[in-house]
Amino acid sequence: MKAIVYVTLKPSVLDPQGKAIHHSVESLGFKGILDVRQGKYFEIALEDSMSEIDAREAAEKIAKDILTNPIIEDYRVEIAAGS
Amino acid sequence: MKAIVYVTLKPSVLDPQGKAIHHSVESLGFKGILDVRQGKYFEIALEDSMSEIDAREAAEKIAKDILTNPIIEDYRVEIAAGS
Repeated sequence: MKAIVYVTLKPSVLDPQGKAIHHSVESLGFKGILDVRQGKYFEIALEDSMSEIDAREAAEKIAKDILTNPIIEDYRVEIAAGS
Repeated sequence: MKAIVYVTLKPSVLDPQGKAIHHSVESLGFKGILDVRQGKYFEIALEDSMSEIDAREAAEKIAKDILTNPIIEDYRVEIAAGS
């Protein structure tokens, strides 16, 4: 079983890396791009013997305790069955 | 309209950051975690006047040309309507 964790900056937090990408995108001539924000993405492979409820609980705890800085970031967890 | 780009290391590429997280997770006593891999996540806000086809085309090109190192990374693009 696989858990996917998305970590994004809170909307109120400035994202200089996203701004830099936005600037590059505009310099390269792309039109109609309003904003770019960067986040992090984690794939956590869990033992298949775990139930979906246990997997979600473990992934939520890992996301909250290890992967996210709660002052400036939000997280979201998804459970994907299969590989 | 919003385009989401996921950039992940190719499966054959070592991910030392993911390995470090995996090690931390195990040190903290989590059981049943087989592997952790880290990737990047981008939210690209596009003008609402763009068609979904144009938005996808622009996002694919940005993902390919700017956000991904094709030697070691793969990317995936999703178009999300709304905010």
